[in-house]
Amino acid sequence: MQSLKNKLHEAIFEADTKSGRFFDILLIVLIVFSIIIVMIESDDRILRDKEHWLTIAEWIVTLLFSVEYLLRIWVVDKPRKYIFSFFGIIDLLSILPTFIAFFFAGTHMLVVIRSLRLLRIFRVLKLTRYVKEASVLWSALSSGRNKIGVFLFAVVILITILGTVMYIVESPFNEGFRSIPESIYWAVVTLTTVGYGDIVPVTTLGKFIAGFIMIIGYAIIAVPTGIVTSELAKEFRNPTPTNTQVCQSCLKEGHDDDASHCKYCGKCLND
Amino acid sequence: MQSLKNKLHEAIFEADTKSGRFFDILLIVLIVFSIIIVMIESDDRILRDKEHWLTIAEWIVTLLFSVEYLLRIWVVDKPRKYIFSFFGIIDLLSILPTFIAFFFAGTHMLVVIRSLRLLRIFRVLKLTRYVKEASVLWSALSSGRNKIGVFLFAVVILITILGTVMYIVESPFNEGFRSIPESIYWAVVTLTTVGYGDIVPVTTLGKFIAGFIMIIGYAIIAVPTGIVTSELAKEFRNPTPTNTQVCQSCLKEGHDDDASHCKYCGKCLND
Amino acid sequence: MQSLKNKLHEAIFEADTKSGRFFDILLIVLIVFSIIIVMIESDDRILRDKEHWLTIAEWIVTLLFSVEYLLRIWVVDKPRKYIFSFFGIIDLLSILPTFIAFFFAGTHMLVVIRSLRLLRIFRVLKLTRYVKEASVLWSALSSGRNKIGVFLFAVVILITILGTVMYIVESPFNEGFRSIPESIYWAVVTLTTVGYGDIVPVTTLGKFIAGFIMIIGYAIIAVPTGIVTSELAKEFRNPTPTNTQVCQSCLKEGHDDDASHCKYCGKCLND
Amino acid sequence: MQSLKNKLHEAIFEADTKSGRFFDILLIVLIVFSIIIVMIESDDRILRDKEHWLTIAEWIVTLLFSVEYLLRIWVVDKPRKYIFSFFGIIDLLSILPTFIAFFFAGTHMLVVIRSLRLLRIFRVLKLTRYVKEASVLWSALSSGRNKIGVFLFAVVILITILGTVMYIVESPFNEGFRSIPESIYWAVVTLTTVGYGDIVPVTTLGKFIAGFIMIIGYAIIAVPTGIVTSELAKEFRNPTPTNTQVCQSCLKEGHDDDASHCKYCGKCLND
Repeated sequence: MQSLKNKLHEAIFEADTKSGRFFDILLIVLIVFSIIIVMIESDDRILRDKEHWLTIAEWIVTLLFSVEYLLRIWVVDKPRKYIFSFFGIIDLLSILPTFIAFFFAGTHMLVVIRSLRLLRIFRVLKLTRYVKEASVLWSALSSGRNKIGVFLFAVVILITILGTVMYIVESPFNEGFRSIPESIYWAVVTLTTVGYGDIVPVTTLGKFIAGFIMIIGYAIIAVPTGIVTSELAKEFRNPTPTNTQVCQSCLKEGHDDDASHCKYCGKCLND
Repeated sequence: MQSLKNKLHEAIFEADTKSGRFFDILLIVLIVFSIIIVMIESDDRILRDKEHWLTIAEWIVTLLFSVEYLLRIWVVDKPRKYIFSFFGIIDLLSILPTFIAFFFAGTHMLVVIRSLRLLRIFRVLKLTRYVKEASVLWSALSSGRNKIGVFLFAVVILITILGTVMYIVESPFNEGFRSIPESIYWAVVTLTTVGYGDIVPVTTLGKFIAGFIMIIGYAIIAVPTGIVTSELAKEFRNPTPTNTQVCQSCLKEGHDDDASHCKYCGKCLND
Repeated sequence: MQSLKNKLHEAIFEADTKSGRFFDILLIVLIVFSIIIVMIESDDRILRDKEHWLTIAEWIVTLLFSVEYLLRIWVVDKPRKYIFSFFGIIDLLSILPTFIAFFFAGTHMLVVIRSLRLLRIFRVLKLTRYVKEASVLWSALSSGRNKIGVFLFAVVILITILGTVMYIVESPFNEGFRSIPESIYWAVVTLTTVGYGDIVPVTTLGKFIAGFIMIIGYAIIAVPTGIVTSELAKEFRNPTPTNTQVCQSCLKEGHDDDASHCKYCGKCLND
Repeated sequence: MQSLKNKLHEAIFEADTKSGRFFDILLIVLIVFSIIIVMIESDDRILRDKEHWLTIAEWIVTLLFSVEYLLRIWVVDKPRKYIFSFFGIIDLLSILPTFIAFFFAGTHMLVVIRSLRLLRIFRVLKLTRYVKEASVLWSALSSGRNKIGVFLFAVVILITILGTVMYIVESPFNEGFRSIPESIYWAVVTLTTVGYGDIVPVTTLGKFIAGFIMIIGYAIIAVPTGIVTSELAKEFRNPTPTNTQVCQSCLKEGHDDDASHCKYCGKCLND
């Protein structure tokens, strides 16, 4: 019994054994499938006469997710810890709406909650952690985090000022710049070079300032790139090793490859 | 006879001899010309009273392509291998539509098939392989392939989540966000800073989230640049040598500059 | 008395002591709060029936700013120097409009002047100077300043020429390109890849040239990035030390960490 | 007489002496002024009742340009060489339209020719060549020229294929994609992330492909940046020296700083 539990734990919670990888791929396929169902359901035009198919698919996914949820509770040593963890709640929210909609009339709120199922996709990231490249990118972004944060902070201040200036210049002649927050929204759209065109300057001075903002945006877009490139170049030389084992008792990660016991709670780790 | 065949093979299939380069340039001019014909044909407004000129040009190109196709079959040692290869099928599909349209009334499908002729342009790439720079770029992109792949995978997950969030926020008030796939399309358009403006947020919360997405997009656009720059810097130091010879027998490439026999089938290579 | 003055000076004008950091954070919160008031006030739709709350908040902020302004005048050795400095004027303009509006009927100009309060946000930057990352970014941008300037100058010339070319090509057929300045505005919008879509080419030649401009823009967007990356890589190796002390007498900054006297006027610095 | 001629040559054609720099700055101011006149003239709305002022300014500029043109002819040793050089023709075309419009009724063509005056702005570039930074940027772009060329060539092929694919998918349902050239124009607008929004996909498959194109564009925008950054990093280490002297006899440039005779024709150079 304990042996079965151990094997299941290895399959469900880890990704570096054969069974673990198989379970993960199966789970990903199921998650992607469940997301596609939610997507199709959201489109009124596709839904029309295929509703019963969707309901069946929805129930199959929900039942499989339920089985997985119960198994997860069973195999971990401290079920309560799992149930109240971030992923535990997400896992529960992925299956609840279908059951609730079965007993009560479907409300709009359930669609919103069902969308939370999307967050399960983060389970996929565990698989990518295998790919050495992902960890290189992640390390580079992490070590550049502070610099990018400072840069984004400066951009936010700049956008606030530019938005206010454009509000003062354009608001008397232009419906689109009718308040400072909307002008700031325009400044974000322009400085990031997205440029929807739903709000555009119409006065000559406004166009001149807008052109100036664009050229400024052209120059400062270089900053985050410079940061990431420099950090990546550093990371390329000394990549960090990774391991995907999860302790069966305390659910913590980050164990060394040669560790045989959890370094946080001392519990023996699966091989 | 065999000597003529050899010379033709050298001219048609290779690009590092004088005759080979001459044939390639001729072929490129013809391909570009044939593509221009397809382009003009696609525009109803230009077509009007110049239709007979187009038909004549079309037939000249088709006949020249036919001659080239038959020559290719003749000079290779294993014609079947060429006929069923990717380029063999493309070459056939480039000439078939004109003949079919001659016997039967022209259907719309033929225009689509004729467009496949565009793929012949890849033959041009063989010429560029000469340019040392192309191989440097290609090597850099190849070795950064995995990292860019991981990055694009992360971007796709991010876009799915952001699209769903915007669907929940905007769909009750906005025609443009009427389904999750359309919201995801909007998220792609926004995060890549394309910003058509055919779908734009209208609620205050939607605009706030959109602004947030843009600033995020601003920061992560730096990642692929960082990857390519780092890889290019590496490649600049150790460029890889290239060779454009194609074996007459097995059609394989990648021979060393000093090779006199094909390393895959042992056949003697042209000098 | 002098001791209190010294302590207040330390709190108000410096950022590297405990009291100084506390005062700065308080001030930032107040500035952000006052900016939010100006933003809400600018939006006619939110304003409607909450006007009296806004007036109260406005007065609280104004009174606190007034106290701060008077304290600043009191603690510096040469009040006149502070009053006529850039920040001194901004500080005064932040409080004046509310008082004027109290005695006279509120004019539109006052809203504009009140927006100047936004510039107080630059006081926040002093705090960020602490963050080592900000100084690294700043140094890199400073040393790349000349190169970015030359690049932007070249871009401006290019935009002028491209705008004129498009004016010649499009103006007879297109309302959007009715003058050279508007065509230049279009060229800026296009070259920086913002692309509002309020002005678009309609002639075939115009579209062809526009496509050409976009591909050019694609290539030259690389230049500022290249400059910043190179400068950042340099800066990463030798970061510059920073210090936020301000001399009580001459208001100058840039003192060394171990300096006990102002290097400009000789006055003793607070520890 | 010869001495005056020499001094004038130094002032007009060179930029590294005091008089040369003064003349260049004067000329730049005049060119910018003449461009502003052309710009104002192009805008029907500003022109209305200030026409006579524009005519006067136009004549002042034309007369000054005429004097400069005649001086240039006088001071060079081989006037014919100057007259038929690129800048000689531009200089003539800058003054001719005003004279022609004086004798004949002004035609629209003259406005176009007058716009050529814009090209005189390139004379300004000679001044920037002084700025060391400009030469660093230029060298980096020059040595990356081939790689950027290969990249742009690949982008053009990619755009042609993507445009054709979108034409096949969208043309039956969408006015905007009515011909292959227009679809290619759309592909350029999308891949470069400009995104006007004048042509947008409407079919589900079209939107899916468009999203794919955008993400691809996101990844390949990194390539030119990588090239320029690598080249700039190289250039930062070994910048190239520059000199702006022009030989009085053969009009050639590129002399060493210590050269006393033209290395192309042997003529003595001004100090």
